[in-house]
Amino acid sequence: MIGNPVTTRSEFAQNALGRTVPTMVNNKPQVPYLGVGQFRPHGKKAGPPLRSSSAYPENGDKRVADLETALRNAGLADGMVISSHHHLRDGDRVALLALEAAARLGAKDLTWFPSASFPSQKGAIELMESGVIDHIEGSLNGPLGDYCTQGKMRGMGVLRSHGGRWQAIQDGEVHIDIAIIAAPTADAFGNADGSHGKSACGSLGFALADSMYADRVIVVTDTLVPFPCIPWQIQGNNVDFVVAVDSIGDPAKIVSGTTEITRSPDRLRIAEWVARFLRESGIMRNGFSFQAGAGGIALAFVDYLRRFMKEDGVKARFVRGGSTRYLVELLQEGLTDYILDGQTFDLDGVKSIASDPRHVATSPFTSYNYHGKGNFASMVDAVVLGATEVDLQFNANVVTHSDGRLLHGIGGWQNCLAAGCTILALPSFRDRIPVIVNEVTTLTGPGELIDVVVTERGIAINPRRQDLLDRMKGSGLPIRPIEDIKKEVERICGGEPARPKRSRHPVAIVKWVDGTVLDTVWQVG
Amino acid sequence: MIGNPVTTRSEFAQNALGRTVPTMVNNKPQVPYLGVGQFRPHGKKAGPPLRSSSAYPENGDKRVADLETALRNAGLADGMVISSHHHLRDGDRVALLALEAAARLGAKDLTWFPSASFPSQKGAIELMESGVIDHIEGSLNGPLGDYCTQGKMRGMGVLRSHGGRWQAIQDGEVHIDIAIIAAPTADAFGNADGSHGKSACGSLGFALADSMYADRVIVVTDTLVPFPCIPWQIQGNNVDFVVAVDSIGDPAKIVSGTTEITRSPDRLRIAEWVARFLRESGIMRNGFSFQAGAGGIALAFVDYLRRFMKEDGVKARFVRGGSTRYLVELLQEGLTDYILDGQTFDLDGVKSIASDPRHVATSPFTSYNYHGKGNFASMVDAVVLGATEVDLQFNANVVTHSDGRLLHGIGGWQNCLAAGCTILALPSFRDRIPVIVNEVTTLTGPGELIDVVVTERGIAINPRRQDLLDRMKGSGLPIRPIEDIKKEVERICGGEPARPKRSRHPVAIVKWVDGTVLDTVWQVG
Repeated sequence: MIGNPVTTRSEFAQNALGRTVPTMVNNKPQVPYLGVGQFRPHGKKAGPPLRSSSAYPENGDKRVADLETALRNAGLADGMVISSHHHLRDGDRVALLALEAAARLGAKDLTWFPSASFPSQKGAIELMESGVIDHIEGSLNGPLGDYCTQGKMRGMGVLRSHGGRWQAIQDGEVHIDIAIIAAPTADAFGNADGSHGKSACGSLGFALADSMYADRVIVVTDTLVPFPCIPWQIQGNNVDFVVAVDSIGDPAKIVSGTTEITRSPDRLRIAEWVARFLRESGIMRNGFSFQAGAGGIALAFVDYLRRFMKEDGVKARFVRGGSTRYLVELLQEGLTDYILDGQTFDLDGVKSIASDPRHVATSPFTSYNYHGKGNFASMVDAVVLGATEVDLQFNANVVTHSDGRLLHGIGGWQNCLAAGCTILALPSFRDRIPVIVNEVTTLTGPGELIDVVVTERGIAINPRRQDLLDRMKGSGLPIRPIEDIKKEVERICGGEPARPKRSRHPVAIVKWVDGTVLDTVWQVG
Repeated sequence: MIGNPVTTRSEFAQNALGRTVPTMVNNKPQVPYLGVGQFRPHGKKAGPPLRSSSAYPENGDKRVADLETALRNAGLADGMVISSHHHLRDGDRVALLALEAAARLGAKDLTWFPSASFPSQKGAIELMESGVIDHIEGSLNGPLGDYCTQGKMRGMGVLRSHGGRWQAIQDGEVHIDIAIIAAPTADAFGNADGSHGKSACGSLGFALADSMYADRVIVVTDTLVPFPCIPWQIQGNNVDFVVAVDSIGDPAKIVSGTTEITRSPDRLRIAEWVARFLRESGIMRNGFSFQAGAGGIALAFVDYLRRFMKEDGVKARFVRGGSTRYLVELLQEGLTDYILDGQTFDLDGVKSIASDPRHVATSPFTSYNYHGKGNFASMVDAVVLGATEVDLQFNANVVTHSDGRLLHGIGGWQNCLAAGCTILALPSFRDRIPVIVNEVTTLTGPGELIDVVVTERGIAINPRRQDLLDRMKGSGLPIRPIEDIKKEVERICGGEPARPKRSRHPVAIVKWVDGTVLDTVWQVG
């Protein structure tokens, strides 16, 4: 590999938070981050090509023999953008099957545009080595992130939130030539759904923008049902070809059988404090709403909050998923009217979304798209999130570790920062590396949107939120300045973490929810 | 009134079926009809303006005091296109309220773009007389159609099918400046649904394109619920303003309490013959599908077909609504897996769509849009439709009477012609005026798509459908050449109907499903 020919020519600018960001990425001009709510888009949404029903089978049967045929019929050519979704998570087989089929057809210099990539897709590295894939735009988890951080990817990585991905497609920043949609159930017309079938994954919302805006759309399923596939989260009217395969993925890796609450006493304490914070601050009240992920702390938090809600006779209007057994139980126990669900993490979630009309599949359009007429994220009262680092300005990092390696995607994390109260629930150190730092390695979320940091050593409230500080006066919870917690942790860990040795070669950028460039990931090692 | 200044300057062309059509309508160039499936669109779908969530309330509350405020905030200006939907049918109050509010704000020369207009909206005539409305593009039922036929509307009427209306919006032929969406239930964010609330009407599918493509979208509701309004057929992410009013319409006229089967022996015979035709031709078989409207003959047909299905042990995969009690009973009795419903005609239909997940709301996009990647209409095995006239080439008319007066909209009629077997079920004469004519007054559907005409005096099969003629050989049904039936009816009625006295002034055009111009409606009297 010869390094990074595109990005070494980059010019750089300082953005509104002082971060150095390239002004040109993968031959496209970029706008440096301007501040929360400062960038106003102009122009119109992208319009996909007009089609005529006269070019499609009257009986609605769009099946073709295999992925090669579908890609050939879709006009696969060098340099195209091929998209896929990640609702099958680490169990997905379809994205790689499609990229390998493209390779067999001789395609080169493709951009792979997944909503996220996973360790099981590390076969994409070979395709990058052989020039089939030029670069990946999308979350880079594990080995693919590592490959990128080492400067081995030709084009630059572009990391977007779930909402940012919708925004980029909708705004025409990314034009998808061919969308590949793995579907647990589909009919021959292309209507598709994720909640039924042997590879059921719940919602298919991450693929919705792809289906609406791509030039050509290929649905790949292992459970073909007679028309109509009900419900249809992907509409056949947007689909060109349907391919039936034996298996779209490994069910064991698509959803975990059960998601597990943490057993670590420190982490349980964090979870309990988060729940107590919501109760004591008055955020937990009748008709409130919250969102939490599927990590061990988040699950424990939901369990504590449930107890408090029962004790206080409080019912939520809605909770946001990533759904798990714990959210499903809230619904079944009448502690919330609705689950609004962007992705489904365990078997209880899948079963619930398939059968309970109060468990509603959402998409990044409804939930997170910043370039819409509002979205759900800012209407959520409280969100509980993780981070790899947070700094004294409450800026946070979720994509790189303190060593500079890019190992995680953004997911909906950036979008969730719009909630009424954003809480980071974090152990104060990991592997003896402090989590609270002077300045985050990679800025993923601006500190002005992060309200509370809860660690096992105390709770820091962002000084911008005087209202929360006032509400928590007299609380038995250990509310402390973030600087104090930082010092205590550094005493335990033996000082501040070492700064990563990184080059001046950018390997990826982190977009903000409005498409501007928030920060840069630099080559390491 | 000074007649029709725009259209008197029109140039005309002959289209592929020999009809004389204007080449310029309301200052927009037109493509004459080229034949079924012959017109191929180019370019891209329309893109509505990009917006930013930073311009919308973070708490999602988009309510404003009243329609005037909403229209003012939406930037109402002279010459704008204001759209509305007709799911509240003759009970709708909202469209006229909005247009009157626009009048109070001093707006002039508006185009009103309803999905259909109804007799109760005849107040629009005053707004046309005073120059607030320039012209109406959309179905013109009753008095508004009469007004148009008299040449009193300044601009020309443009009649489109439900699918054609979606196509026109999607293709950018019609740009909606402000969409007015009457919603039986909505939340303050603008999520809206038709299946609940005191003015429940069932589906809101006709308003979906408006919500997606209009520059500004105003939701008007009389039943405001806390976020989230579930289900949401209209997504708040597309909505700018929400207005709460006391009443959006007259429930008694929104849905009929019950829809009634015809009691006329002649019409019952037609209905029975249609059902027998489907049975004897083998179209009625396991997994088949059909669509029928809510008229007296159609309802009776469904009732006969149900009996035959039970007798023969046949189950449909899906039936298409306009839903009524009769379709709901099919679903409840297990005679169909699904109802795919575009609009809901009676209280049983509304109750069913609100509570039964097998009763699925559809939109003109899924069902009828010809400029998509196929649509549902061509996948329906048989459709039973009405008409005002049919001619010896099986061309049919649904918009004008034989006297040339424009009294009906197209609805989904044109779109339904794509079905595997299109059956017109018609009394052979009405008010002693024969229905089978030499040449239809206004061509609304090309004869090549109309397969069977069933009257109480016999059944005519289009000679193009040799397969159906073959299948019906030996049937006890009175299969006859259409010419024979015509002659018999003329003997009864005393000859052919008088041709309308009409001028050379076009007052409206009939679009085909692909946006080309199929025929012209001429000024009468």
